[in-house]
Amino acid sequence: MADSTQEGASNGAVNNNKVPDIKPKTVSFNKNKDEATIEFHMKEEGVKLAGADLALAAAFIQDAVNGRNMDIKTDQKTISLYEIYNHWLLQIGLFIFIWLNLALALFEKPAVDGLEMPYWATMILELVCLAFFVFRLVHSKMVLQDGKFFKDSKNIVVIVLIGLTLLDMVVYLFWVNFAPNANPVRWSRPLRAFYIINFAEGRQIRRAFRNIRRTLPDIMNVLILFIFSVALFALLAFKMFDKKHLVYPDGKPYFRDYWESFWDLYVLVTTANNPDVMMPAYENSSWFALFFVIYTIICLYIFMSIVLAVIYNNYKRHLKGEVKLSVFLKRRLLRRAFDILKIWKNGQFVIPKDRWDDLMRIICPNRSQAQLDLLLMVLDTNGDTDIEKRDFLNLVDLLNVELTEVRDRMTLMETHCAPCYMSTPSEFIKKAIHHRFFMYFFDFMILVNAICMGFKWDVLELYFFLPLFTLEIVLKLYAYGPKQFFSDFWNIFDFIVVGAALIGTIIEAIQKEDKEIDYVLILRVLRLIRIMGAIERFKVIITTIMNIGPSIITYGGVIFVLYYFYAIIGMESFGGRIRFYGYNNLKPEQQFCGDAKLNGTEFFNKHYCKNNFNDILKSFVLLFELMVVNQWHILTSGFVAVTNKAARLYFISFHLACVIIVLNIFTAFVLEVFILEFSLSGGKFDSAIEEKITEMGMQIDSGGPKVKTSKHKKQDKEELVADVQDVAVTEDPTKEPPKIDLTSQDLSHFDLNANAENLTTWFNNLTQEEKDKDLKFHLKKKSGKNIELLLQRMFEGEIDPDDEGEDENLEQLPPPPSNFKSLTLDSVA
Amino acid sequence: MADSTQEGASNGAVNNNKVPDIKPKTVSFNKNKDEATIEFHMKEEGVKLAGADLALAAAFIQDAVNGRNMDIKTDQKTISLYEIYNHWLLQIGLFIFIWLNLALALFEKPAVDGLEMPYWATMILELVCLAFFVFRLVHSKMVLQDGKFFKDSKNIVVIVLIGLTLLDMVVYLFWVNFAPNANPVRWSRPLRAFYIINFAEGRQIRRAFRNIRRTLPDIMNVLILFIFSVALFALLAFKMFDKKHLVYPDGKPYFRDYWESFWDLYVLVTTANNPDVMMPAYENSSWFALFFVIYTIICLYIFMSIVLAVIYNNYKRHLKGEVKLSVFLKRRLLRRAFDILKIWKNGQFVIPKDRWDDLMRIICPNRSQAQLDLLLMVLDTNGDTDIEKRDFLNLVDLLNVELTEVRDRMTLMETHCAPCYMSTPSEFIKKAIHHRFFMYFFDFMILVNAICMGFKWDVLELYFFLPLFTLEIVLKLYAYGPKQFFSDFWNIFDFIVVGAALIGTIIEAIQKEDKEIDYVLILRVLRLIRIMGAIERFKVIITTIMNIGPSIITYGGVIFVLYYFYAIIGMESFGGRIRFYGYNNLKPEQQFCGDAKLNGTEFFNKHYCKNNFNDILKSFVLLFELMVVNQWHILTSGFVAVTNKAARLYFISFHLACVIIVLNIFTAFVLEVFILEFSLSGGKFDSAIEEKITEMGMQIDSGGPKVKTSKHKKQDKEELVADVQDVAVTEDPTKEPPKIDLTSQDLSHFDLNANAENLTTWFNNLTQEEKDKDLKFHLKKKSGKNIELLLQRMFEGEIDPDDEGEDENLEQLPPPPSNFKSLTLDSVA
Repeated sequence: MADSTQEGASNGAVNNNKVPDIKPKTVSFNKNKDEATIEFHMKEEGVKLAGADLALAAAFIQDAVNGRNMDIKTDQKTISLYEIYNHWLLQIGLFIFIWLNLALALFEKPAVDGLEMPYWATMILELVCLAFFVFRLVHSKMVLQDGKFFKDSKNIVVIVLIGLTLLDMVVYLFWVNFAPNANPVRWSRPLRAFYIINFAEGRQIRRAFRNIRRTLPDIMNVLILFIFSVALFALLAFKMFDKKHLVYPDGKPYFRDYWESFWDLYVLVTTANNPDVMMPAYENSSWFALFFVIYTIICLYIFMSIVLAVIYNNYKRHLKGEVKLSVFLKRRLLRRAFDILKIWKNGQFVIPKDRWDDLMRIICPNRSQAQLDLLLMVLDTNGDTDIEKRDFLNLVDLLNVELTEVRDRMTLMETHCAPCYMSTPSEFIKKAIHHRFFMYFFDFMILVNAICMGFKWDVLELYFFLPLFTLEIVLKLYAYGPKQFFSDFWNIFDFIVVGAALIGTIIEAIQKEDKEIDYVLILRVLRLIRIMGAIERFKVIITTIMNIGPSIITYGGVIFVLYYFYAIIGMESFGGRIRFYGYNNLKPEQQFCGDAKLNGTEFFNKHYCKNNFNDILKSFVLLFELMVVNQWHILTSGFVAVTNKAARLYFISFHLACVIIVLNIFTAFVLEVFILEFSLSGGKFDSAIEEKITEMGMQIDSGGPKVKTSKHKKQDKEELVADVQDVAVTEDPTKEPPKIDLTSQDLSHFDLNANAENLTTWFNNLTQEEKDKDLKFHLKKKSGKNIELLLQRMFEGEIDPDDEGEDENLEQLPPPPSNFKSLTLDSVA
Repeated sequence: MADSTQEGASNGAVNNNKVPDIKPKTVSFNKNKDEATIEFHMKEEGVKLAGADLALAAAFIQDAVNGRNMDIKTDQKTISLYEIYNHWLLQIGLFIFIWLNLALALFEKPAVDGLEMPYWATMILELVCLAFFVFRLVHSKMVLQDGKFFKDSKNIVVIVLIGLTLLDMVVYLFWVNFAPNANPVRWSRPLRAFYIINFAEGRQIRRAFRNIRRTLPDIMNVLILFIFSVALFALLAFKMFDKKHLVYPDGKPYFRDYWESFWDLYVLVTTANNPDVMMPAYENSSWFALFFVIYTIICLYIFMSIVLAVIYNNYKRHLKGEVKLSVFLKRRLLRRAFDILKIWKNGQFVIPKDRWDDLMRIICPNRSQAQLDLLLMVLDTNGDTDIEKRDFLNLVDLLNVELTEVRDRMTLMETHCAPCYMSTPSEFIKKAIHHRFFMYFFDFMILVNAICMGFKWDVLELYFFLPLFTLEIVLKLYAYGPKQFFSDFWNIFDFIVVGAALIGTIIEAIQKEDKEIDYVLILRVLRLIRIMGAIERFKVIITTIMNIGPSIITYGGVIFVLYYFYAIIGMESFGGRIRFYGYNNLKPEQQFCGDAKLNGTEFFNKHYCKNNFNDILKSFVLLFELMVVNQWHILTSGFVAVTNKAARLYFISFHLACVIIVLNIFTAFVLEVFILEFSLSGGKFDSAIEEKITEMGMQIDSGGPKVKTSKHKKQDKEELVADVQDVAVTEDPTKEPPKIDLTSQDLSHFDLNANAENLTTWFNNLTQEEKDKDLKFHLKKKSGKNIELLLQRMFEGEIDPDDEGEDENLEQLPPPPSNFKSLTLDSVA
């Protein structure tokens, strides 16, 4: 079963060769069921569309823009309900309640110090969360077509989760009241993390999970073989070393029992006990080293590489399927919207301007008529103000392009203090500040500052660097004006850091106390990153890392779900067994992390007592340490010492799930995304819309030094400005400081007024007020695009524009082909 | 400069539109310089080719088969010399002398215990090696065209290496005789490993090195950024923790000095000191954990993934270039051979049968005329016994297909003891043994045996399992006959293991002593691998691993070169400073690994004394431990303790070179090769030759259960046998045991006699003696092919058959394109 057939199943009612399955009752508009209807539509030009139809079309388009996919009923009431369902307040509400539900672990026993709440308080909070979840479910049931709700496995999962939680609460209430000594357990708590995945809004994380689930069977084969190899080597090692009666340096027996051998060799694959596990045998005979070398090569280097290869291979395959799916979904929604809006004109179906305007007023109510006209013009390839279907399919891309009005480019100083600000010495100072050596000087000073920090020359800090950087900020503020100044991230950063340091120093001077203001000063060295980012050869790498960032958060979510699940289980199993009291001046019962069994263990000797499951935050830190792998066997040994060897299962399963599977999938993801990002040049992935915008306006160099780009732009602009008549140019291009390109290095402003002939017609319709404004498209550079979008666009080129995929159960990907040659060979060739 | 322009530069003399640059003097045959020559050739049918021309063509073809590429002179003397140059004795000689040269490190001070030789003895041996290297160089200088020798950078490198070594020897002789107390050093020794790369025979390793060298600049950018990040975080950590005056559990200061901070954080990226490095700060305040978590995420998870991505991306790009190159080289050599052999016939150039026979008698002198005819028939697509150029280009593939004559399929028993062996009870026993339950039973028994070993039920071993497995071997030998039995790897393995165990047990019983025979018994559990290999779902993975094996050896070579280099340097720097005397009953000067400075260090406490650089084998083990990474900082700390902190440079550089660069390239290689191997199905990579062979014969299922395959084969065979008249079928198909398919599961026998109509002509020419034989092509399945070959073949489909690439400096790949979109996009799409 697909986990969300509903999300996948587009009912295809708008497909001409299919009988629409929307019930006539709920349909307030007649779609092209038969020729007669088409005839009816054909005569309809100029006729206003019913509000409900318009709202439905708008809903489809908004779903397409947001990547949503719900088969809603098409009556007017449902559409209004659906609008409410998608209201941002409710969406944020869901987000807040999911996190509140998760955050309960902070307050429940074992709670974070000082946050503990009685069990009934957290239960009431939990009930509130559950109530909201139920409300969301009921709401979605109301808007969905009949039967779709229960076909969607993610709804079922949420219902089951809620049911289990309620059951757990009831059981716990009895348990805690009638048998409080029987160690009552809230066993449904680990399941809370799954709400993140199973609500429709956790689309990205659900997709990542689906990808993991689909990759699992293939990994399983390798993992079984891997475990088998470890078992085999463990048998060999056991037979080989058992009779030698060797011991570890701490006196522990060496390979004297099969399961211990297996455990030691499993740990060796994670490298955590290398070379300790080898040393006793190696000391006995040098040739025994060969056994461990061979084992490491086979089980670590070869098997782990193959696990990565299998995961990468499958990841790529499934990624393609997922992307294909979302492209199909988007197209279908747009097609359905088009079918509602279209009229018959000049031998084809089109959307006329009046309907476009009506539609847009619903979708983006805040946009001015001028903006809507501009959007239409960009969308309409042949310039007849009617939108053909092929153009209409680009609508999502168009709506994703930011369009803003720039009103004022004058600095405050320019407007309020012009005579002084514009004087020759002032101009000279401004020129000096604008000069790149000004920037170079302060970059160099940051470097010097960092070096001084390294050598502990702290005196310079206060009397030289702090005043110097304060001066820098004042000068920059003067030259660029606050608006310009604060549009750059690093300027804001500097302002906050230096400002805080200044205030902190003053307070310190007054109070004569050593405050924590140091941290703020330290952060200033992060400005060094800016210097690195300015070097061309590193820019591509840094930009890539920055762009991968948001997508990484998806995997952060996946790991969070895993962490939460394991943390709660860990807290229930190991909470309170190991305690941290420090290591000096302890009472007898506080010694050895509070448990004498830890006396003499490496866990205690290494002072690992704070690595425990005593609250959820500590558990997260511990799980992170386990994820980093090193010393995980020692951490495990601590918990084994205070419980029993079965505890190893918990740690092994976490290692398998988190390190071997999720982290490898993360690596596969980075590999794929990095290669994609790195290969983006030449504009192959510009959407038709972006091409059109660029074509209409001017081609701005995306590479090269920034200052140069800025000049180019200005020249082009000036030339083009000369062509456009009567345009009120509100900003003087020469006044635009070159700094702006640093600020907006991801955005290339497309100036509308620069587009001459094409725009004349449109321009004449503008009111004078609108002409005073400056409409700009924010075209993101290739490197600044969302990975998701890039993937979609890349794939869109490959599939036929009319292809909308198979009809039913879109989210159910076709079974993997027995050979996936075509995909994988491409990758090699 | 390319490191081997000579290997790359094919002079293109055979290219019609190029003026040949072979000097007329040395040319004993006239190639198509002008129309007149062609006319001359056109009349030449039936004319015998000069022996020298034939030899030259044969040399070209053999170079193409072996992937060699030397621009030799074309006179008869040179060709003979070149034949000697490529003689296997000389090739093996080179191999032996290179390894002898490397092995000298075993005997030189610090030598492996008991192997030490005086310095003059190893020097004489080294001189012998050098003399052979010089001989090889002179020999290659003689056969190469004028000027080519010194254009090849690998020759220059070898000359420089030899020169440096000689210089070093002279210096050492003075040093050791006149200033023996000044610690004489043979400083040229680390360079010895480079002979492996720089002799023409180390083609694969050289290629891997070239790939690494080309990938380096791209990795460098990421590495610089990475080091910068570590430096930045180190500054943050230093500023943050310095004032806290924290200490590690062993009392060591915690982040009190910038360089120590840097070192600690660098080690953290390798995860080796996680979570110890965090604990003091974490104990101080839980929030400090956040710093380490962020650091680990950025510098470990993100940067290290990006290093892998950059390496993988570049690896793929360079791989494509390398493969393209070798395809072009092969084609050029074949074209040159064709141009020598061709005659003008029916409007095109062809090679007639007489010349083919002459050629083949040189290339494969051991093949019978029948075999040569068969080869011709396979190569010749239109059946006119003339080979067109397009066919001729397939020659290398044809020569790579194994062709054997199977003479006798009767078991010894069948021939010598027929009445008894063929009797009904005997037949019944044989049938039982052939039954698959016989196999299942013993597989199960191996499993039981393994489990018994795990539970130390050793008594069963001697009295149950050993007799049981002995019986299995005897029965199998009886049923299959020795020839059949020993053709299966696992049978041989069983025979040796069980035989040795049997003999060992008997000796033990006689001598009443506990011998080391156990090891042999232990090895028997490796038979479990066979069971796993028999399960279909694991087969593809195991086959892949097996096939990747040989290619992995190339990377083993790369790592060996690195190890050798570092091992010698390590021995010179750290040899003798840390000694292993055991840990009990020591004299005072033997305590603490022989150096009191190690007292109290973790290095000593963990009993790492045997991890030292006191001889080359120990050094290798130590370097392997460093490669596995875990505890490398403790190993480093030991050597730092007995020397000084500069020693860290040695260990950091090894980590960067070996772990970050070479191991990642290895992973990239496994990724690429695994994806390639996994995607091989559907015969897309069958060469034209293999397709022809399959077409002529019968299509044998490559998948499915073996027994079924075997039946299929038999049926097909029988049907076809009926078509062929007068064929002496020497084997009775019903007698063929089903076991054979297990044995030869990588080879599908193509029975020549099964190919009906096409072969009739050829068959009539056979002598009766030849008809008694059974000619078979050993067609390897896709999964059994060499990676190199697969890559070539995959690429051959892509490039135009007439394309031979750019002319000069083939080994100099074109500079990487500024964007390598076409390559990388394919991989995503």
